[in-house]
Amino acid sequence: MTKQPGGNAFPAAGLLAALILGASPAFADGNTPAIVRHPTTPPGIILQAVTIPPGAETLVISGQVPVPLVPGVNNSFEAFGDTKVQSEGVFRRIEAILIQRGWTMADVVKLQVFLVGDPKLEGRMDFAGFNAAYRQFFGTTANPNLVARTTMQIAGLANPYFLVEIEATAARMPSGAAAAAR
Amino acid sequence: MTKQPGGNAFPAAGLLAALILGASPAFADGNTPAIVRHPTTPPGIILQAVTIPPGAETLVISGQVPVPLVPGVNNSFEAFGDTKVQSEGVFRRIEAILIQRGWTMADVVKLQVFLVGDPKLEGRMDFAGFNAAYRQFFGTTANPNLVARTTMQIAGLANPYFLVEIEATAARMPSGAAAAAR
Amino acid sequence: MTKQPGGNAFPAAGLLAALILGASPAFADGNTPAIVRHPTTPPGIILQAVTIPPGAETLVISGQVPVPLVPGVNNSFEAFGDTKVQSEGVFRRIEAILIQRGWTMADVVKLQVFLVGDPKLEGRMDFAGFNAAYRQFFGTTANPNLVARTTMQIAGLANPYFLVEIEATAARMPSGAAAAAR
Repeated sequence: MTKQPGGNAFPAAGLLAALILGASPAFADGNTPAIVRHPTTPPGIILQAVTIPPGAETLVISGQVPVPLVPGVNNSFEAFGDTKVQSEGVFRRIEAILIQRGWTMADVVKLQVFLVGDPKLEGRMDFAGFNAAYRQFFGTTANPNLVARTTMQIAGLANPYFLVEIEATAARMPSGAAAAAR
Repeated sequence: MTKQPGGNAFPAAGLLAALILGASPAFADGNTPAIVRHPTTPPGIILQAVTIPPGAETLVISGQVPVPLVPGVNNSFEAFGDTKVQSEGVFRRIEAILIQRGWTMADVVKLQVFLVGDPKLEGRMDFAGFNAAYRQFFGTTANPNLVARTTMQIAGLANPYFLVEIEATAARMPSGAAAAAR
Repeated sequence: MTKQPGGNAFPAAGLLAALILGASPAFADGNTPAIVRHPTTPPGIILQAVTIPPGAETLVISGQVPVPLVPGVNNSFEAFGDTKVQSEGVFRRIEAILIQRGWTMADVVKLQVFLVGDPKLEGRMDFAGFNAAYRQFFGTTANPNLVARTTMQIAGLANPYFLVEIEATAARMPSGAAAAAR
């Protein structure tokens, strides 16, 4: 950057090193950009939006479906439970995948939630039951983060007794250490 | 680049400075990559696809739903209007969120549109009504940009009188100035 | 960076050059990050998840719908074929778009698949028929890659005889050469 007979030939070398180590892009003020979670007004249980800055890495998880309460038994609604129970099982599956790949639920930035009409509710989706499960995993002491979310009722899933499928996307700014270790 | 007793040891220092200032990655030809919107053939009202280059930042907005025509009255289709009216309200909501967060409708690169069957159309979604609303916000003089889009009819939304939910994603190349200001 | 009478002014110059040429961010160990496809356990026909590292470029393709078997004839299920035939046509369309834009099916990282109930199956989606089409394009000798995927039955599409719409997202790490050529 400078013509300089000695000393630090590159004052911004620290930033550059961070960059080369795989860290987030460094900014002029020495700060690195961060994922910014924008709350709704007034604050609710989901985000209004989330900003993913340059330099983020993303984990896209395939849509996850419910787990039978008794392994191998999958031919009735009773085998999977109601929307709340099924959603809890799906979130536990998502959490297990995140942990297996070195991430956590706090890294989730977006959910798309596909609910099937619940026979108990005259064929309407059990939105409240899903939210009761969601609240156990987001906006808690263990994970204070919320997510951008789109929730809807669809016509059906692969198994006629599935009441929910959830597609989760996580994003984070890789640290130099974490990046170098991958 | 090299151990060199004289001359400019690093001709690309300007590009490097841009990089460190948080600008888009610079390319060998001195250009920075840009978001590229690919039209359909022949050109239509949506894009065929969009390329998001390295260095982009993204704003993911939660699915937005219609606004009651009279605040607080939300228990009939009349309270929300038909698909066109509801979609206009949803787009205004998305625009307000973008502006609140420092973005514009011209930054939107992708929409997922979830329509509910309209009782006026024997339970079919009002695709034309939605498109009439969409055309007011995209491909206009104010915003000539189009978006990649997926539109479908789903089974239902959180309120039984909602006829539309829209999930918008925006992306842009941060300028050094804008990035440094964050 | 500097005019400097001795010593290696910038030992990481090689990595830096790669960075400036638009290549992927370089890591401390000299490796560049890569898109990582995480299989399910046991391995199946879709991925459990996919990691998109910093520096990736993304191609977002609008939802693609079936092609009539006879151009211009689009007013019956026979005009488009069953779910398997329609899905093959949609995948060929997606492949053609990818190739037109300089990508390949091997770059696809994510699919969202929206199926409509098949009249042959008492209104249930033809999940097996879709999978038969999917297997011709992913996990093959020509394209061994799999994708993160979410598949569901929705209520309808723009044409009442469409049985499938597919939204594909591709991602790749741009090479210096490819980036400079754009």
